[in-house]
Amino acid sequence: MGRVVVASVGYTKVGDHWDKSILDLAVEASKKALKPYPNIKPDVIIVGNMFSGQSSKQEHLGALLASALNLVGTPAFKVEAACASGGVAFNLGYRMVRSGEAASAIVVGVEKMRDLDAPEVSLALSMAESAEYTQFIGASFLSLNAMLARLYQETYNVTRDELSAFPVLAHRNAATAEHAQFRKAVTVEDVSRSPLVSDPLRLLDCAPIGDGAAAVLLTSDELLNEGDVVEVLSSKISTNIFSVYEREDLLTFSATKDAASKAFSEAGISVEDVDVLEIHDAFSVTAALSVEAMGFSKPGEGAKDAAAGVYSLRGRYPALTFGGLKARGHPVGATGLYQIAELWLQLKGRGGLNQVEGCRIGVAQNIGGVDTTSVVTVLAKR
Amino acid sequence: MGRVVVASVGYTKVGDHWDKSILDLAVEASKKALKPYPNIKPDVIIVGNMFSGQSSKQEHLGALLASALNLVGTPAFKVEAACASGGVAFNLGYRMVRSGEAASAIVVGVEKMRDLDAPEVSLALSMAESAEYTQFIGASFLSLNAMLARLYQETYNVTRDELSAFPVLAHRNAATAEHAQFRKAVTVEDVSRSPLVSDPLRLLDCAPIGDGAAAVLLTSDELLNEGDVVEVLSSKISTNIFSVYEREDLLTFSATKDAASKAFSEAGISVEDVDVLEIHDAFSVTAALSVEAMGFSKPGEGAKDAAAGVYSLRGRYPALTFGGLKARGHPVGATGLYQIAELWLQLKGRGGLNQVEGCRIGVAQNIGGVDTTSVVTVLAKR
Repeated sequence: MGRVVVASVGYTKVGDHWDKSILDLAVEASKKALKPYPNIKPDVIIVGNMFSGQSSKQEHLGALLASALNLVGTPAFKVEAACASGGVAFNLGYRMVRSGEAASAIVVGVEKMRDLDAPEVSLALSMAESAEYTQFIGASFLSLNAMLARLYQETYNVTRDELSAFPVLAHRNAATAEHAQFRKAVTVEDVSRSPLVSDPLRLLDCAPIGDGAAAVLLTSDELLNEGDVVEVLSSKISTNIFSVYEREDLLTFSATKDAASKAFSEAGISVEDVDVLEIHDAFSVTAALSVEAMGFSKPGEGAKDAAAGVYSLRGRYPALTFGGLKARGHPVGATGLYQIAELWLQLKGRGGLNQVEGCRIGVAQNIGGVDTTSVVTVLAKR
Repeated sequence: MGRVVVASVGYTKVGDHWDKSILDLAVEASKKALKPYPNIKPDVIIVGNMFSGQSSKQEHLGALLASALNLVGTPAFKVEAACASGGVAFNLGYRMVRSGEAASAIVVGVEKMRDLDAPEVSLALSMAESAEYTQFIGASFLSLNAMLARLYQETYNVTRDELSAFPVLAHRNAATAEHAQFRKAVTVEDVSRSPLVSDPLRLLDCAPIGDGAAAVLLTSDELLNEGDVVEVLSSKISTNIFSVYEREDLLTFSATKDAASKAFSEAGISVEDVDVLEIHDAFSVTAALSVEAMGFSKPGEGAKDAAAGVYSLRGRYPALTFGGLKARGHPVGATGLYQIAELWLQLKGRGGLNQVEGCRIGVAQNIGGVDTTSVVTVLAKR
């Protein structure tokens, strides 16, 4: 099997795109990713998206994008796994190129969220949980994560200010990231005293609502024939017990743990080898539990480590290097592809003011639901 | 690469399942498909579905099903390509097993439609077309196909009664099919005089609204180690110009033509080798244009050939052998898997009263939109 490389990436700024449709966003990101290699005609188009049906009354995004890109005839489809839709789409594209099923693939994540009002977004996101149980009793996705945050704080004696560390570092990095939704630093006090939205989660604990699209062009390295490439070393999907209330250990993200363990093993790396890290910080507590599940921090120490600088741009494991979900933004189906695009920027040395010096190995972790689906991907500079 | 076989299939009756959720249906079909091989634990779960978000306020069906089947940890996701969602899901499962990315895969198509009222179903189906153009001007999916039917009749001098031939044969076959939604024969007069819904399409030209799920277990033949198996010879996806009004030749289903040409070529078969055929007869005109695009009838002669008995159970190319979309029913995301399951029954000699004698090669054609996405699959008894 050939080695699979991320040849190029493209993305829109995350934010309010009132003047652009979901197709406009997907086309913009795709064209940017395709532009550097006009001779590569992708064998497959994979779209990661969660709720275009709700937001845009539009499905069939695969064929829609194929036509818009003048790639009529190309196999095309949408993949959905809640907020992990983008990561799963990437995983499929990678596996199709790796196995020789496709010589190249364009994988696009896109979500249009701002056309919905807040209750509509809340309903759309709650479709990641069980309609028959969780939705029925009125537990929103936010309130489920709030319960997790409270349990996390009480179990491990995590202070309010420690919980604020991930949002603070995300915003600090986003301040210098051109494509970020909120290019603004915030202080620990800003986060810890922001309005409560679902106790103990406050406004600045939570990723915002935004529109965006990100795309990557995957090819075999034979096709690309370049010196300095970003290679996909591994990508693994795992799933957890669907309903949070049925899990025995709420504070272990077992899908992430399983996916990371398998991805690191297949890539032949250990935690210590990782130079740059994009995690699924949908909420502050999610970021903490994610780094713990992958082994970057010990159980209960993720938020404390963030407060101590471990995950800062000049720390041991730089994370959320362009702002993460919290500040770069979280257009849900696109997030998994923004992560890959950002790792590509880092590994190519194109990170600008956010560059992590000398990085060679990058890891992305993208989850759907409360760690219900998790995708962990390892990229390397070669 | 190993040969890929459809080891087993499972499905629900199509119809009104007021007492079952979308998950219940998916679980029922999956468990039936998994039951004969308790030792095979699938490496991946792929769900084909178009609009669970609209019908059930539920996404994340992959992980939801993984948990319900006690397959926590297994990679799982949903695939969407409008009414071709099931066919595309099957194609992906096949390619993952073929390439060695998975030793086995469970592919499930499911749709819950009856919980929506008719205008809601119409809106949900219209998401297969462009929200910005087709929906905006008020063209429903039905009306687009009606325009196609009129053009077809006028271009080729197809009579009303000839157009009725596919629905008549579908209902005739469904009368003896246990899982069909409408187990009732109808006459040419019944169809030709049924109420107009969008001129010239009448009620009995159109596939009904129903709930259902169908699943297949795919494995490599090494894993199965049996004598008489149903092998997947090929499966190809193609796409057409997205918006019908932008196509130069409205009466050539070019996605189906392309997919069939590639699938037949890869399988090493020609049209004459095909013994049994499941086509996407969402509307009478769709059936006619489908058999023409694949080469079973000449252009303009699909409906006439059906009227002459070519596609009847004892005809040259038996089609819609358990009633097709028209009478077995069309729970959209499940349809592509019902087709595979029905070919499996035929090739295994388990067709009961609907058995096509001595069949060895079967073809399924599943489309999304107006031939916007098409999946053509070739199965063989080995």
